[in-house]
Amino acid sequence: MTETAVPAADHPLEHALDDVVALTAALVDIASVSGDERMLADAIEHVLRLRAPHLEVVRDGDAIVARTHLGRAQRVVIAGHIDTVPVNGNLPSRLELDGGSGDARTGTLHGRGTVDMKGGCAVMLALAVALAEPAYDVTWVWYDHEEVEANLNGLGRLARTRPELLAADFAILGEPSNAGIEGGCNGTLRVELTATGRRAHSARAWMGVNAIHGLAPVLDLLARFEPLEIEVDGLRYREGLNAVGIRGGVAGNVIPDEAVITVNYRFAPSRSVAEAEQELRDLFASVAPAVTMTVTDASGGARPGLDAELAQHFAAAVGGTPQPKFGWTDVARFAELGIPAVNYGPGDPSLAHTDDERVPIEQIIACERGLRAWLTGEPVG
Amino acid sequence: MTETAVPAADHPLEHALDDVVALTAALVDIASVSGDERMLADAIEHVLRLRAPHLEVVRDGDAIVARTHLGRAQRVVIAGHIDTVPVNGNLPSRLELDGGSGDARTGTLHGRGTVDMKGGCAVMLALAVALAEPAYDVTWVWYDHEEVEANLNGLGRLARTRPELLAADFAILGEPSNAGIEGGCNGTLRVELTATGRRAHSARAWMGVNAIHGLAPVLDLLARFEPLEIEVDGLRYREGLNAVGIRGGVAGNVIPDEAVITVNYRFAPSRSVAEAEQELRDLFASVAPAVTMTVTDASGGARPGLDAELAQHFAAAVGGTPQPKFGWTDVARFAELGIPAVNYGPGDPSLAHTDDERVPIEQIIACERGLRAWLTGEPVG
Repeated sequence: MTETAVPAADHPLEHALDDVVALTAALVDIASVSGDERMLADAIEHVLRLRAPHLEVVRDGDAIVARTHLGRAQRVVIAGHIDTVPVNGNLPSRLELDGGSGDARTGTLHGRGTVDMKGGCAVMLALAVALAEPAYDVTWVWYDHEEVEANLNGLGRLARTRPELLAADFAILGEPSNAGIEGGCNGTLRVELTATGRRAHSARAWMGVNAIHGLAPVLDLLARFEPLEIEVDGLRYREGLNAVGIRGGVAGNVIPDEAVITVNYRFAPSRSVAEAEQELRDLFASVAPAVTMTVTDASGGARPGLDAELAQHFAAAVGGTPQPKFGWTDVARFAELGIPAVNYGPGDPSLAHTDDERVPIEQIIACERGLRAWLTGEPVG
Repeated sequence: MTETAVPAADHPLEHALDDVVALTAALVDIASVSGDERMLADAIEHVLRLRAPHLEVVRDGDAIVARTHLGRAQRVVIAGHIDTVPVNGNLPSRLELDGGSGDARTGTLHGRGTVDMKGGCAVMLALAVALAEPAYDVTWVWYDHEEVEANLNGLGRLARTRPELLAADFAILGEPSNAGIEGGCNGTLRVELTATGRRAHSARAWMGVNAIHGLAPVLDLLARFEPLEIEVDGLRYREGLNAVGIRGGVAGNVIPDEAVITVNYRFAPSRSVAEAEQELRDLFASVAPAVTMTVTDASGGARPGLDAELAQHFAAAVGGTPQPKFGWTDVARFAELGIPAVNYGPGDPSLAHTDDERVPIEQIIACERGLRAWLTGEPVG
């Protein structure tokens, strides 16, 4: 951390602007469960207006967009959601320091939102204030309602209603990725496969047609299926095809006339939703032509765009080997806008939403240094 | 029908004792949904005490046992339940006569209980009164609570608490069998097969173990399984092995850690419940050793005993070719007491419990004639 003196102020975030770990804790301690983000959004907006005169600040609901206008050749969006899943006795935050000082500190910050994703939000806020003249024009976005129904999502709202605010050549989402780059994301498709039959008393089963038995070839295919790994822009995306639900049956003495299996397909971002759907239709039709398939949910993936020079420069600046992101994240919203996007933030994503959510503080510090190095280095393009 | 004059009496059953079709209608018109059998039981008991002095009548709850004591070499039990499933706008009964007169009448009697099984009860009641000196000692049994939970079953109660009342060499149950002999019954076994796994986010399916996929070999086996036909005492019992329920799933994005399939096995009466259970254990273990099997419900079958001379005599007297009974019926309770048993009654069992339950009256007449011929003919043994 720099030792620049910051004038004391009343706002808790202002005290912490020069210490990204303290800033994370301050953001965590302003609870912001989805739908209840206003206090935190107000605090972030307040700090930006007071301490970052180099940014144009736009408030949209509980989303904040803050942009430089330096006339750089390229613009990057750096975004993070400020809401969390419900608190469950895990606030306020608790810092366990193992040792060291300044940027060499190690330890763990515990509490709701430490992983998902106030560490990323703090890194963004510290750099938004600190870097008046980054190497690229930057659009910082803090947004609301990520942890709830997709139609409420603040980033989705901006993309729908004010897409010009998100225009950029590259996007970084501060979702937890263990402080490494996780590029793009797989798409996800959920379908219901329904087998039909004819009811009969199970004492005279031959009078009926068993719909549950009709699912046998589907289940057999799923059990034997070997998911592909597909390379997209230099990253290998591991796909998955899984039953996530199955149901059928009328009564203990009745041959059932309907059975349904719900399948979730996670597909590489090289395919569109339509392609993934057609692939499943062909696959299941080949083993069970009488089974009908209905799509219940679909979201396209996102290419990482790591083959672009801008992205490679980012990867070189933050270090490490970029990995593919398997879970679906809001990077896909950037993909829909034609903007390549990666995830880069502190925290282990498998701890997100758990009651003992916690982040190694060295990952917060590493992300702040990585982004700072990139944004203050030599630009490309 | 005989033209014997019957003294007029106030009781509706008494008017009908010489016309088994009218008697069936009279029994049907005294509604007797399970738990509400008292009025009908009272009516039957009243008629027996008044008109059948040759019988010893015992009342047990709403069951009635009426026995001859003629010192015959052999005794047969002839039994039927007097309760029905709930009425659904299908009472009172309605008779559609096609033509003919007396025993040559044809037509259809509509209404709740016409099939299951007041036709059989009427045949029994007419003959119990009419035959003071049958060729075999006869134990007539009308019982309650057949259409509800097995532990309430009136025949089961008698077998448990007063088994001496049911002692016999052969048993006939008046359940609908299209006026032909349906011997014995298959046994039934219900088991739950549970596959377990390990939960994971479906975006990283390889971190988990999919329990639904774990059921694939079980479902595949069921779909491919070819049930046996097994000859028992001269009848061929068709078996069945069917999924009657399947369930599994946690959420649309979770690899499920448990999935359960419920299987109903209908097995020939040549096997015991224990043998049938072991057979299933071996079968499923051979394809899915990690799946656990739990028995949830088991009832043994009943051998028809049609190879016994007494039974063959009965078959010859009523005519037709005996068929196996596939559905489980209370004949199995006789089997448990060591008494071979067959089903013999008017009506199509596939119409039982339907709202348009109806019986061809010629089947009622045929059953009355068949039983009468046997019980008044030359005894064997």
